[in-house]
Order: sequence, then C-alpha cells, then structure tokens
Amino acid sequence: MAAPTPSSLLADDLQACCASVTGGALDVDQAERLARAFKALADPTRVRLLSLVAAAEGGEACICHLTEPVGVAQPTVSHHMKQLVDAGLVTREQRGRWAYYAVVPEAVAALGSALETALVSRSSA
Amino acid sequence: MAAPTPSSLLADDLQACCASVTGGALDVDQAERLARAFKALADPTRVRLLSLVAAAEGGEACICHLTEPVGVAQPTVSHHMKQLVDAGLVTREQRGRWAYYAVVPEAVAALGSALETALVSRSSA
Repeated sequence: MAAPTPSSLLADDLQACCASVTGGALDVDQAERLARAFKALADPTRVRLLSLVAAAEGGEACICHLTEPVGVAQPTVSHHMKQLVDAGLVTREQRGRWAYYAVVPEAVAALGSALETALVSRSSA
Repeated sequence: MAAPTPSSLLADDLQACCASVTGGALDVDQAERLARAFKALADPTRVRLLSLVAAAEGGEACICHLTEPVGVAQPTVSHHMKQLVDAGLVTREQRGRWAYYAVVPEAVAALGSALETALVSRSSA
C-alpha cells in the first residue's frame, strides 16, 4: 500500500476553502494553498504528464511510459512528477525498479471547483 | 466599451481543448495554453486579487479598492493585474484616472472545467 499522502489534505483544504468564501474574498492561507497547486500546473510538461497519467489504462502510469510521450529524460520527468505529488494532485508508489503514479481525482476536481465556485460564482450571481 | 480582449479566445481554446482530449492525452499546444493560465494563478496575491474582483459589487473593481486588501503598493497590484488580463482571466477598462477590472467568468470556468473534464474524467471513468 502507498504511504499516506497530502492528497486528501489538499482536497479537504480546497473544499473547506470553497465553502468558506461564498461570503467574501479568499484569505491569505486559502490563496496560498490554491496558488501552490496552480504553480504545480504552471508548466506545460507537467500539465501533459498529469493528463497522460489521467488517460492511462487503469488510471495509473509507470514512469517508464511517461518519458517518451513528453520527450524529456527520466530524471526530468521524476522532477516534474515530484512537484505534482508534493502538490497533492498525484500519488506515487514505488514497485521494484519503477515508480507508478495515479491522479488524485478529488484533489484535481477540488481545484477545478475552487475556480468555478470560489472565484466566479459571486461575479455571475 | 472595452476593446476586444483575449478572454473569449482563451475560453474558446479551453473548450476546444476539453472537447478534443476525451480520447487521449493533451497535445503540446493545449498543454501550453493551460499552463499559461495556471501560471497567472500561481501566486497567492493574484489568486486573492482575482477573488476580490469576483466578489466586488457589480462584478468589477477599481484598482483603488484593491491595494489595501492585499497590502501591496498600487504599481505591484497593476503588475499582477496585467498578468491576469494577459492570461484572459480578467478584463481592464481605463476610466479617467482609474483602471477597472472585471472577471471573465467563462474563461475562469473553462479553466476549472478543463481540470475536471480533461484531466480527471478519464481516470475516474
């Protein structure tokens, strides 16, 4: 089994964030949590890696299948994936020689929902 | 009236992006467009500014009302707002001495939807 990750924490944070901002603007802590997650996605290679993992058979991808599609060396892919893992958007599990990654759907969805709910709903209300 | 902005282009791009990725991973162009928008949100002050504008009465905010809540000088706020405008997430209109900003709800929503649809749906299907 994989070790506990910060993923569910991110999802909880973002859900708490969204619930609490309906009456006003985001506070500093909420904005920092969101910005940290957006920063992990502020690079086209990481966006592609996340979409590749999401599109992978069974919802998880071996790092050995991620290097060729994005056209960068494995250490660089590892570095990018670590940022997605640290942001709580992806989990990582080592199995023998290879690392396997899976998207944390609730964390990515919570980020999308923060955009739609927390940042937009009030201006279109 | 405000001049045409890249906002609707971003919304169109992101919607086209989402529609086309249901069968596979994002291509380089799509990933670059998304990463550019995420980069604009990869800073807590910009996230707060976007939420302040979204929360403002009438859906628009004068720059004169944005400096105090985020606690930074007006030139810095202008610089951050320019990045949100360039990303197509916000529009800017100069009226006399002050600049007024409004969120482009469809662009922000398209970004949120790209996360939920393009990046997640396949892994949870």
